[in-house]
Amino acid sequence: MNKLEMTQAIMVAKENKQLQWEKIAEVIGMSTVWTTSACLGMNSMPAEKARALCELLELPAEVKTALEAYPIKNWDESVPKDPLIYRLYEIVGVYGPTLKEVIQEKFGDGIMSAIDFNMSVEREHDPKGDRVVVTMNGKFLPYKAW
Amino acid sequence: MNKLEMTQAIMVAKENKQLQWEKIAEVIGMSTVWTTSACLGMNSMPAEKARALCELLELPAEVKTALEAYPIKNWDESVPKDPLIYRLYEIVGVYGPTLKEVIQEKFGDGIMSAIDFNMSVEREHDPKGDRVVVTMNGKFLPYKAW
Amino acid sequence: MNKLEMTQAIMVAKENKQLQWEKIAEVIGMSTVWTTSACLGMNSMPAEKARALCELLELPAEVKTALEAYPIKNWDESVPKDPLIYRLYEIVGVYGPTLKEVIQEKFGDGIMSAIDFNMSVEREHDPKGDRVVVTMNGKFLPYKAW
Amino acid sequence: MNKLEMTQAIMVAKENKQLQWEKIAEVIGMSTVWTTSACLGMNSMPAEKARALCELLELPAEVKTALEAYPIKNWDESVPKDPLIYRLYEIVGVYGPTLKEVIQEKFGDGIMSAIDFNMSVEREHDPKGDRVVVTMNGKFLPYKAW
Amino acid sequence: MNKLEMTQAIMVAKENKQLQWEKIAEVIGMSTVWTTSACLGMNSMPAEKARALCELLELPAEVKTALEAYPIKNWDESVPKDPLIYRLYEIVGVYGPTLKEVIQEKFGDGIMSAIDFNMSVEREHDPKGDRVVVTMNGKFLPYKAW
Amino acid sequence: MNKLEMTQAIMVAKENKQLQWEKIAEVIGMSTVWTTSACLGMNSMPAEKARALCELLELPAEVKTALEAYPIKNWDESVPKDPLIYRLYEIVGVYGPTLKEVIQEKFGDGIMSAIDFNMSVEREHDPKGDRVVVTMNGKFLPYKAW
Amino acid sequence: MNKLEMTQAIMVAKENKQLQWEKIAEVIGMSTVWTTSACLGMNSMPAEKARALCELLELPAEVKTALEAYPIKNWDESVPKDPLIYRLYEIVGVYGPTLKEVIQEKFGDGIMSAIDFNMSVEREHDPKGDRVVVTMNGKFLPYKAW
Amino acid sequence: MNKLEMTQAIMVAKENKQLQWEKIAEVIGMSTVWTTSACLGMNSMPAEKARALCELLELPAEVKTALEAYPIKNWDESVPKDPLIYRLYEIVGVYGPTLKEVIQEKFGDGIMSAIDFNMSVEREHDPKGDRVVVTMNGKFLPYKAW
Amino acid sequence: MNKLEMTQAIMVAKENKQLQWEKIAEVIGMSTVWTTSACLGMNSMPAEKARALCELLELPAEVKTALEAYPIKNWDESVPKDPLIYRLYEIVGVYGPTLKEVIQEKFGDGIMSAIDFNMSVEREHDPKGDRVVVTMNGKFLPYKAW
Amino acid sequence: MNKLEMTQAIMVAKENKQLQWEKIAEVIGMSTVWTTSACLGMNSMPAEKARALCELLELPAEVKTALEAYPIKNWDESVPKDPLIYRLYEIVGVYGPTLKEVIQEKFGDGIMSAIDFNMSVEREHDPKGDRVVVTMNGKFLPYKAW
Repeated sequence: MNKLEMTQAIMVAKENKQLQWEKIAEVIGMSTVWTTSACLGMNSMPAEKARALCELLELPAEVKTALEAYPIKNWDESVPKDPLIYRLYEIVGVYGPTLKEVIQEKFGDGIMSAIDFNMSVEREHDPKGDRVVVTMNGKFLPYKAW
Repeated sequence: MNKLEMTQAIMVAKENKQLQWEKIAEVIGMSTVWTTSACLGMNSMPAEKARALCELLELPAEVKTALEAYPIKNWDESVPKDPLIYRLYEIVGVYGPTLKEVIQEKFGDGIMSAIDFNMSVEREHDPKGDRVVVTMNGKFLPYKAW
Repeated sequence: MNKLEMTQAIMVAKENKQLQWEKIAEVIGMSTVWTTSACLGMNSMPAEKARALCELLELPAEVKTALEAYPIKNWDESVPKDPLIYRLYEIVGVYGPTLKEVIQEKFGDGIMSAIDFNMSVEREHDPKGDRVVVTMNGKFLPYKAW
Repeated sequence: MNKLEMTQAIMVAKENKQLQWEKIAEVIGMSTVWTTSACLGMNSMPAEKARALCELLELPAEVKTALEAYPIKNWDESVPKDPLIYRLYEIVGVYGPTLKEVIQEKFGDGIMSAIDFNMSVEREHDPKGDRVVVTMNGKFLPYKAW
Repeated sequence: MNKLEMTQAIMVAKENKQLQWEKIAEVIGMSTVWTTSACLGMNSMPAEKARALCELLELPAEVKTALEAYPIKNWDESVPKDPLIYRLYEIVGVYGPTLKEVIQEKFGDGIMSAIDFNMSVEREHDPKGDRVVVTMNGKFLPYKAW
Repeated sequence: MNKLEMTQAIMVAKENKQLQWEKIAEVIGMSTVWTTSACLGMNSMPAEKARALCELLELPAEVKTALEAYPIKNWDESVPKDPLIYRLYEIVGVYGPTLKEVIQEKFGDGIMSAIDFNMSVEREHDPKGDRVVVTMNGKFLPYKAW
Repeated sequence: MNKLEMTQAIMVAKENKQLQWEKIAEVIGMSTVWTTSACLGMNSMPAEKARALCELLELPAEVKTALEAYPIKNWDESVPKDPLIYRLYEIVGVYGPTLKEVIQEKFGDGIMSAIDFNMSVEREHDPKGDRVVVTMNGKFLPYKAW
Repeated sequence: MNKLEMTQAIMVAKENKQLQWEKIAEVIGMSTVWTTSACLGMNSMPAEKARALCELLELPAEVKTALEAYPIKNWDESVPKDPLIYRLYEIVGVYGPTLKEVIQEKFGDGIMSAIDFNMSVEREHDPKGDRVVVTMNGKFLPYKAW
Repeated sequence: MNKLEMTQAIMVAKENKQLQWEKIAEVIGMSTVWTTSACLGMNSMPAEKARALCELLELPAEVKTALEAYPIKNWDESVPKDPLIYRLYEIVGVYGPTLKEVIQEKFGDGIMSAIDFNMSVEREHDPKGDRVVVTMNGKFLPYKAW
Repeated sequence: MNKLEMTQAIMVAKENKQLQWEKIAEVIGMSTVWTTSACLGMNSMPAEKARALCELLELPAEVKTALEAYPIKNWDESVPKDPLIYRLYEIVGVYGPTLKEVIQEKFGDGIMSAIDFNMSVEREHDPKGDRVVVTMNGKFLPYKAW
């Protein structure tokens, strides 16, 4: 069973049981974003987490094996088109050089890791319309001279 | 004076006065990220903010005019190459569909605005290496049926 | 049933019943453009509208479920090739900077939303050949400073 | 004087005289969108209109000549990046096949001309936030069999 | 039956009956180029022509329906590779600006329509090697000012 | 003097003398399309033709030398954007496979040469709007087996 | 049977009979390169050659028909990636302008035909390592003025 | 002096002295193709050859230095457009897989080197039109297992 | 059996037998990197190595045949997206010109062969986090003048 | 002074003093690869190293400032064309998935850092032709679950 079939199996089970990502994540004791990304095939799950998820969703052992596999992280569109994802891409385009200026001023020459990294999404209530708050948290990695 | 020349003038003045973006932002009473992005030509400044910035950096009136101009927001590389900016692009690629799942589960069918939007960068101290925390905050916009 | 299969099922039923988009839209009490776009998989339908549409076209429950699903809005061709759609693309290319000038002069720095948005198509009779009138109506979203 | 230099000359004069596109268009007796597009180099102006515009803005004869020249209509970005223009591109991507369905249902096999074409922009007041209304009006051209 | 399957059915029947495009076109009373393009799925056929073609080739009703359907005109290769088609592309690249100069000198600012358009291919005998003569005939569409 | 400077010199002289391509071609005894393409830098001129053209336009010897030089035939846009030239590209996309079918049916396996080639443009009067007639004439080159 | 299936059938038969391209070509009385290219679907075979090849490889009549069909010459990668083929592409990139200089100096303004063309591959023994010798032979086609 | 300026200096001197590449190559005792490619900046010249060339063309020492410099071998167009160079690209596309089959059948798994490589161009007289003969000669490099 | 099916068969057998690439390579007496690349279809295996591998993994003869076949070395993504592979691509982008400077300073004008080439991966223990050491070893190939 | 001008100044001084990268690196007490990359503008130099380099090469203070600046790491060609650099790109394409298999087998799910990274180039003497040995050494970064 490959990652694509794994995702489809999880989606069907999630729909049938009427579970939300937030609930699934809570049950297996991990964050919502990471749990979702592993179910979409973009992260590998430690064995005990994969077991807990398969128990909750009553999925067979091959889903567990697929969840543990190390993924090839790929995406189809160099420039994404779905409006929700495009807006994130646009933010990187518009604010990328700004973030480079501000991060390197605070930390020196280096980058924010996308590997030693986590992310969360929260809902902020606002009378003019609720707001999405996305927080990215990555280790600063300084360039080394040698 | 176009936005490019404006940015160069600001960079030289900032270097000469040994000011940081954080300090400049504080003086004009705005956030660091927004102030930097306006100075890099990616946002327009209200007149009073542009005036305050030009006073602080002792820059002529044409810089003020250029800061107030509505920018054409453009970027050269569809897929960015600088490692710091590429990591942000990679995060959008790896986690974009995850964010779509999680945001639409929490809010319904719609997007996070990149226009009614703000962003901040913080330093989180960590004994295993300090961490960069980037927070994005955008209004949720639901799709309307008509 | 995915959105693609849903569209095919609707197309076959529409053909068999000899119904037009305009009529279908009228029956479910929505506009022609929005109804068509939801049937082509580019918008999600509220439950009662999906039910009305499936009753009219005598389609099974899984079509209703597919109509309600939040779509991934994607398109194959970065530059469209079908002449009717290419002409729209060409209009954006030729008149895009003009619209930016005119909209920002009228409203200030910001954009026309493509989310809080609706569109209609009308036929204008003209002795020299009838004309297509496309009206786009989107909320103005001003850039916020922070 | 090429079209680029012409646009720059007009922009400076317009700024100095504090004139808006709407006013300029009114004085020369043409629509705002068309007048702006001709000043941005995307349409050629009839001699009398070019003369009126140069008189209003006190511009020399070579601007008039450049306004009359037949333009090469070109644009830099196959996929535009400025958010205001990208939203228009996104609308073509999301609603292009819908418009093809609806237009061809109303008119038969053919296209909306982008040549025998005009466009306008209006402001619609709305308590929840004003709206941009863009109207495109093009002659329907049926495919001919031969 | 989609256009692709329709083309395959026509090709098989044409091969079996050893008919040429020129003969098929003559029987249905249309030109060779247009008839071929409709059979390749790039134009829609009026009902009586589709009926005549299906009678000649002894093809079922679903081919007739497919011939009448309005096509999505698309092509796989932005830059074609087959040498015969590439040469046509090369001619557009090499002579495109020349044709713009010559057509606009003769007709004013505008274009040759690709919709109100027809085309023919003839064989010209020549002792040094026969020649292909392709004639394109399209309505001139002037740009309108408004 | 390179081809680009040559074209600019010719354009200025042509404008000053109020000559049309058709007239220039007639004077040097060549066709309008070929003469224009050579002046735009896409063909090399035999010495006597270059001399005649420079005499007519009163241009210096270096223009003559540039006209005789063998050009590098290049064009900027893989997919052209100017509407007049795009329509020609669209015709190649829509009718390319049709022309391959028809030409190879008439001539056998091979191509129409774009080198041993000529082209003309004529105006066809028509009460419903005049028409552009473009004729391409190229030697048929059969593929050789060896 | 399409060209792809034809190639697969030939490859299997060739493997089973342990025949080399050179031998196959010799038996049908054609060159190795041309015979291989026809078997890979990039050239059409005259009937008698196709018959001889099918007899040698004991292939059915539909392979013969497929060999005679006029091919659509296409290739997947605009820039090839297999190292053997990339090196040929690199040679065109590095030496293309050199060949243009040298050929046009020897022959005048024109090209080497890729249609009236043949090619061979030989092995040259060399104590420092044997060498591949590829010879391309194409008719010179001069540009015609008209 | 960079390679581009070097090429321009050589071109002017060659034109003034009315020398051909073949003659220049003969005088410095190298092949025509290699000499031309070095003058176009695509190969580095040994010191004595650079000296001989500069003496012949009466060029200053900085040209000699530029000729000796190791070039960055680059080319502008991933898919070349000039017809003479495109035909070479087309040959690689059409015959690339054929050459892979034939070379690997003769030599085993490996490639023809584009580094330990030479090339020549000859004119073959033919009553039906003279022919260009291009010969490429590269060392066979077998893949090594380790 | 093609290379893709071969890889899948090897992966399943490797998983079932719980063997690592390092162990497989040791058994057949080759390096880990080369063995893995041959199993992924990017190198051809000599017969005795393919036999040993199939014995170890208990795979049928058709896997052995597929391992011996000469591969078409291709990859899907011109710019790879998986983070592990992208980092290697980034290193080529950031350090490519540096390696050109350093290699050509040490060796003269030429390249490092990617054909007469081998590579290894080692783990270097480090208290601050273990390190990956990749060693590439390719024959220097000097450019030849001719 | 930007990085580009800095590189040019260093190149001229290095040429005049006839120094090699290896020697320059030795004098400032850093590795050859890192020193070269900083001089080519792809790494920032600590102040004392920049001072030492400018003293050695007798370069002014603005070169020192430019060496210390944090670079924007960019490269022109998504797919490099210079043969030496292309071979490195080809190695990533051919062996990328192999390295992913081998590294993740040795280390678990994660990547080799391109930031906490160093590289060296050595010459290996070999009677069949000397070899280039490139060693890349990067910290392993495991993906974190959260």
